[in-house]
Formats: sequence, C-alpha cells, structure tokens
Amino acid sequence: MLTLEQIHTAKRRISSYVYETPMIRLNGLDELLGCQVYIKAENMQKTNSFKLRGALNKMLSMPLEQLQQGVVAASSGNHGKGVAYAAKLLNIKATIVLPDSAPTVKVEGIRALGAEVVQCKLAERHVITEKLSRNHGYCIIHPYDDYDIMAGQGTAGLEIFAQLPDVNTIVVPIGGGGLMSGIATAVKSMAPHIKLIGVEPAVVSRYAKSLEAGERLLLEEQKSLADALLTLQPGERNFPIVQQLVDEVVSVEEALIYRGMKTLLSEGKIIAEPSSSIGIGAALQGALPIHKHEKVCFLISGGNVELIPEEN
Amino acid sequence: MLTLEQIHTAKRRISSYVYETPMIRLNGLDELLGCQVYIKAENMQKTNSFKLRGALNKMLSMPLEQLQQGVVAASSGNHGKGVAYAAKLLNIKATIVLPDSAPTVKVEGIRALGAEVVQCKLAERHVITEKLSRNHGYCIIHPYDDYDIMAGQGTAGLEIFAQLPDVNTIVVPIGGGGLMSGIATAVKSMAPHIKLIGVEPAVVSRYAKSLEAGERLLLEEQKSLADALLTLQPGERNFPIVQQLVDEVVSVEEALIYRGMKTLLSEGKIIAEPSSSIGIGAALQGALPIHKHEKVCFLISGGNVELIPEEN
Repeated sequence: MLTLEQIHTAKRRISSYVYETPMIRLNGLDELLGCQVYIKAENMQKTNSFKLRGALNKMLSMPLEQLQQGVVAASSGNHGKGVAYAAKLLNIKATIVLPDSAPTVKVEGIRALGAEVVQCKLAERHVITEKLSRNHGYCIIHPYDDYDIMAGQGTAGLEIFAQLPDVNTIVVPIGGGGLMSGIATAVKSMAPHIKLIGVEPAVVSRYAKSLEAGERLLLEEQKSLADALLTLQPGERNFPIVQQLVDEVVSVEEALIYRGMKTLLSEGKIIAEPSSSIGIGAALQGALPIHKHEKVCFLISGGNVELIPEEN
Repeated sequence: MLTLEQIHTAKRRISSYVYETPMIRLNGLDELLGCQVYIKAENMQKTNSFKLRGALNKMLSMPLEQLQQGVVAASSGNHGKGVAYAAKLLNIKATIVLPDSAPTVKVEGIRALGAEVVQCKLAERHVITEKLSRNHGYCIIHPYDDYDIMAGQGTAGLEIFAQLPDVNTIVVPIGGGGLMSGIATAVKSMAPHIKLIGVEPAVVSRYAKSLEAGERLLLEEQKSLADALLTLQPGERNFPIVQQLVDEVVSVEEALIYRGMKTLLSEGKIIAEPSSSIGIGAALQGALPIHKHEKVCFLISGGNVELIPEEN
C-alpha cells in the first residue's frame, strides 16, 4: 500500500536535499499540442531527473548499518545517478548496473559522483544486481518496485498540485511505474477529478498491454529512443496502483518521440531527454484526450542528454 | 524622453499579441554563479526573442497609411524576426537588412515569416536600410534608437517586477541599448533600489567605453559569439537613459560568453543564444557585484540558435 501520508513524510525527509522544480508555462507549444501547455521541469532537478527523490527517500529511511554495507542499483541511468548522488551525500559505496546501451552522458554522470559502474545486457540488469548484492552484501535500491521509492517520486505530484491547483490533466512517462504510482497516489488522493495519463514507447508498451490483459505481461527486449523507458514488465507493487488510479496509458511511436524532443528543443527552448519528451510526442500524435482550454502539465522527467551547438 | 506611462501604454497595446514569458528559478546554477538564480525567459517569447515587444509597439502605433508603404529594418536577426512577425500580423510588406554573418537560423526564421531579406556587411546595415527607405518609401523601424521601441522592450521590465518583486539585481545584455533603456525606465521608476547591470562583449564594449568617456564612442567592427550584440555605438536616445539609470555595465570575454551558454545548456537545461547567456558568463567570470543571498534575474534575451542532439 502507498498512501498520501507516506508521500508527505517523504517530502519532509527529502525536501532539504532536492529542488522544488519549476512549473513552466510554455505558451509557444499551445497550438501545436492543442491545450494550455505547462511543464513540470524535473530535468532541472539535482542529478537532472526526478529519480533523486525516490533514491533519497529510500536511502534516508534505511538503517545506517545497512547503508554502510553499500548499495547496488539496476538502472537505465537516471535512477543510478540518483542513487550515486544520495550515496555520495551519505558517504557510502554505490554500484550501479547499467545496460551496455546506456547513453554516455548518463554513465559519465554516475562515475563523476564516485559510484562504480557495471555494464551488461539490458535484460540481465536485475540478475547481475542480485548477484552483486549476494556476493558483497550490498543493499538493493530498486528503481520502482518499492513503496519508499514511489513515495519519493510522489513528492513531484504534491508540487504539481501546489503549483498548478487548477490543472486538468497530468501526463507522465511510464516505465516500471514508480513515478506514475507515486504521482497518482498523491494527486488522486487530493483531487480525484484530475486526469492522469501515462505515456510509454509503442515498441515496449508493457503497461497498455498489461492493463488490457489484466495482468503484468513480460515483453521482449526492444530498442527505443526512450532509453529510460525500456523496462519489460510493470512493477509488481506499481501495477495495481496504476490499474486503479491512472485514467489511460498511451503508446507513442518512435518517430513521435523524436518529434516531441525536437519540438521541446526548438519551440520550447527546453532540453529534455527523449524519454521525457514522450508526452509531448503523444500530444503531437493527437493521441491524448485533451482540449484547447485545458491546462495540461507534462512531467519532463529528465534532461540527461548531450547537445552540441550547430556550427554556422 | 521615455516614461513609465509610455511603457504601460505599450503593455496595453501589445499584450494580446505577445506572451508573458516565464520567470524560472534555476536552483542548479546558484553555486556556480554565486547568487539565487532566476531567468526571465524571453527566449520563450513569440519569435524567440524580446524584440517582438518593441517591433509590435512601434508598428501598432504607426498610422495605417504609413504602414502600407511597407517597412524596412536593419537587424542582426532578432529585431528583423520581430518586425517580420508584426508585418505578417498587419499584412504589410517587410524588408530586413542583415549582416552577411547572421546565423542561418535567424535568416531562415525571417524568410519563413514572409519578409524579404537583404544581406550586406555589418557596418553597412543602416546605410542600406536608409537607401531602401528612400527608394521604395519604406518606413524604417529602428532596432533601438526609438522611444516606441524602447517602451515596447520595457514591458519585459514590468513583467519582471510583477513576477519577482523582491528581485535585488537584474542583468540585461546590452547592444544599442533599446532593451536596457526600456527596462531601466520601467524598473527604476517603480523600485529605484533594484540594481541594473548591463553586459556586453569585451571585444565591442561600446557602453563601458562610452560611459567612461562621457560620450557615445563609435568602435571598430569586431567578431563575437554574441552575434546580437555587435552594435558599434550606443543609441543616441538610449545613451543618456543608460547613463542616468544603469548602475554598471560589465564587459565579458568571448570564452566566458561561450561558457555561459554551455552552462545554461548543460546545468540549466535552457537553450539560449550566446548573446543571451552573456550575463551568465559575466557571473561565471566573477565580474558581477552580486551576493549569495541575493535574487538575481538574468534576462535571457533570445533563443534563436540551432542545436543538434549528439549521437551516442
């Protein structure tokens, strides 16, 4: 069970270590997306993603003796960076297990925080993490299937509601479901009329397919621009929350994920990674149940992407 | 003379055509810049620069018969894009005179709005503009040396004060002085204690040198990353206003202009053109009289720069 109270507790626990990220009105995207566009800019969070919220809440609520054994986390990059940051803060050892395909900027960001990086095939991440935990006594910090992680991510939901109480719809990228279950619990407890839409890559639509099937399906590994949303199965603890609280999960084609990122860059002047611009892509695809006069908040989950200025 | 009342009038005249751009708290830059960092995001303005404010205020206050003759404007790009946008809105002909060195993204942005583009050497812009005006009867829309232009740009100052009334210091890029004279008149009329700092490229420090000399010096043409700040002499109507109201003008080295842009990109996740990140560069250079607990608003004047995602 995840409750609003746990999320409030998480907020008190982590608030002096994370930023309250800005809610930005992006007028320039209204016409293109067909709504009043707001973004919750977690790309501007410390470590440049929301993942720090959950990692800090988890690690700050663990007994010190356990932490001092060290921690290990499987990640596509952002959760690992959050764990590495929290480990540095707490002065403990962290090992991050990343897929071979992780973007260089994420691998380097994690190393720069002093964590050890182990790379492997995408599907082997959790097996290798468990092996490292067994062999070295490291405590596993799961990226989403953990109530403390979800409660930490849910603090972004408290902020959204405080910053934009008359929001009509919140659009959230969904992978394992940690962020979405946290935000859904926070928002629906306070304002059940706010619509919540999950967005995931069409090539790995583990939530849309599982919701249709009524059970957690395990999909086959695929490539996607949305490198942070490659999880192959909904989280065990996350799935029922999403099932109960989320209004709709929308799948987004690769070409639209790319267009979402380009649009946010060129029209919005905001740098977000592809996995974070997927909601913008969904709106461009015309796939969201949103309307012209509605205030829609797109959660921009991360900004760990490398850009270079073009030569003139 | 430029008065607060003229700026309020400009606001009423243009407000349904421009965006109230966001004031964004960028926590992630505090430590690097040594203050509480806020940006006024005019890179998110329509046409992606503040210049639309002045162009619209000027053109909406001109008699229709005069407008129908067509307009011509010398520009480094952003003023031209503002004039082209306003001309399209009013359904009149616009010709924009740009330096050969103008960034492709600016030239194309102007053409896409339906304006004609004439390119020439930087120093010849105003001469060619006057010739086009004489030969075709076009009305000249000056980029800065005009009270209606300044009043339009000053509306950004009204917004800054409304959005962040307890701001301590406002840092504004300065070229001819149109934006700075508008903002200084707005802000100092309402709150004379707010500090105003102009920032210009060290290679063309026309304001710092002219203020020291006590008269408007004409500098020699130079190259700078800050392509929007290459004006060689302070504007005739702008100089006395800057002289009277601006607390300090700081010159920024090229390497720091570049670092300012990179920092805003990589740490702030905001896309701004080099001319707009010059204030961030000045802070990185340690050249601003700002302190850790002060709220400093950096005006990000434009976002017309091309970026491409790096391949992984």
